[in-house]
Amino acid sequence: MLRHGESEWNAKGLFTGWVDAGLSAKGEEEARRGGRLLLDADVRPDVVHTSLLTRAIQTANLALGAADLLWLPVNRSWRLNERHYGALQGKDKAQTRAEFGEEQFMLWRRSYDVPPPPIADDDEYSQAGHARYALIPKELLPRTECLKDVVDRMLPYWYDSIVPDLAAGRSVLVVAHGNSLRALVKHLDGIGDDEIAGLNIPTGIPLRYELDDDFHPVTKGGLYLDPAAAEAAIEAVANQGR
Amino acid sequence: MLRHGESEWNAKGLFTGWVDAGLSAKGEEEARRGGRLLLDADVRPDVVHTSLLTRAIQTANLALGAADLLWLPVNRSWRLNERHYGALQGKDKAQTRAEFGEEQFMLWRRSYDVPPPPIADDDEYSQAGHARYALIPKELLPRTECLKDVVDRMLPYWYDSIVPDLAAGRSVLVVAHGNSLRALVKHLDGIGDDEIAGLNIPTGIPLRYELDDDFHPVTKGGLYLDPAAAEAAIEAVANQGR
Repeated sequence: MLRHGESEWNAKGLFTGWVDAGLSAKGEEEARRGGRLLLDADVRPDVVHTSLLTRAIQTANLALGAADLLWLPVNRSWRLNERHYGALQGKDKAQTRAEFGEEQFMLWRRSYDVPPPPIADDDEYSQAGHARYALIPKELLPRTECLKDVVDRMLPYWYDSIVPDLAAGRSVLVVAHGNSLRALVKHLDGIGDDEIAGLNIPTGIPLRYELDDDFHPVTKGGLYLDPAAAEAAIEAVANQGR
Repeated sequence: MLRHGESEWNAKGLFTGWVDAGLSAKGEEEARRGGRLLLDADVRPDVVHTSLLTRAIQTANLALGAADLLWLPVNRSWRLNERHYGALQGKDKAQTRAEFGEEQFMLWRRSYDVPPPPIADDDEYSQAGHARYALIPKELLPRTECLKDVVDRMLPYWYDSIVPDLAAGRSVLVVAHGNSLRALVKHLDGIGDDEIAGLNIPTGIPLRYELDDDFHPVTKGGLYLDPAAAEAAIEAVANQGR
């Protein structure tokens, strides 16, 4: 698994979700570092899965370029997209916190099953009607999501697209987002609904899981290809909230 | 169709073929221009096909990035690779011309059915044993090719992978190489074995074919999205040999 690096919107402190912000220059460098870590660890995926969002695809392309693996087959799905942030998409995080209060803000950010209010289809930050999502019927298109919703819509992709690759003996690289990867890790490691809020996945550092014949992790939590950098990044995120 | 721009090896005057040279800075800019031309002409492919060579994949990624289409599904195949230049791969073009004489040189470059000598599997510029081509059994892996060989190995991909996309009503973007695209154009336009030597496809300018229900061109030769630039580029190549 590889989480995309900093986007132009992360840097601005805006709720992004399904809004299609590109990588910042720092995010591009994080992606290249991710590719070099694959190369250094001699980890060679056979196939790549990405979301439909530019920042994850750019991350995959830059990482694969750095690892001389641009030629790998790749599949993309909205089911690997970032969590849809509903009506918060496009809003300033600090301003949202001030407007709705700390408690509501943290509930939307960190609760497992409380989604923000849905976004209107005619909101400038809605994805309704976008060609990119033309294959998602109207009733399926997310208008807001909590992490539970992300788990529910991600799992069919895990079972139907990733597991068959694994069953065929392929090493799989999933390049996606903070919340779609948390959803996957929650499933793999069997993390409880109450515990998942505490899990953060650092950007740009490949996280390797070896799986047994039932596609369960041999080692819970997997292994970061740069464990020291991962630990420092996780600690930095944990301290942010304090 | 989109032919990749200048590679680091084009710029050096070396026979490239299946050697995996990346794009030069000029080639990267050609790729982005190709993407802008798609955008300006409102041509929106639904699916992308590339070779397994980095310069074509980089061209696709940069063009799709410029057109905000990175999310499109993509398929890759060695059948869209550049012509394999056999034992000439890695050799200096001017030096080869001096060593073998003008007639032999032009025969290898421009004849329809005379391939250069095959490359040895232990040659530093051979692709035998490369992970990228692990799905090609030993007896199928090209060791040299004339244009006729390229037509023969490209056509199964046209019929089995591209035609089904077209039959499903999809617009298809093929990002490939001078000779694999010449092979495709030869097939589409029904160009004779003796006439194909005179056909050059410029780099970085999308060439659009509309096809009828039998997958034959509505207009022979298709239409370049920047016809003036294409004509100038074709003329420049024609004058190179004089």
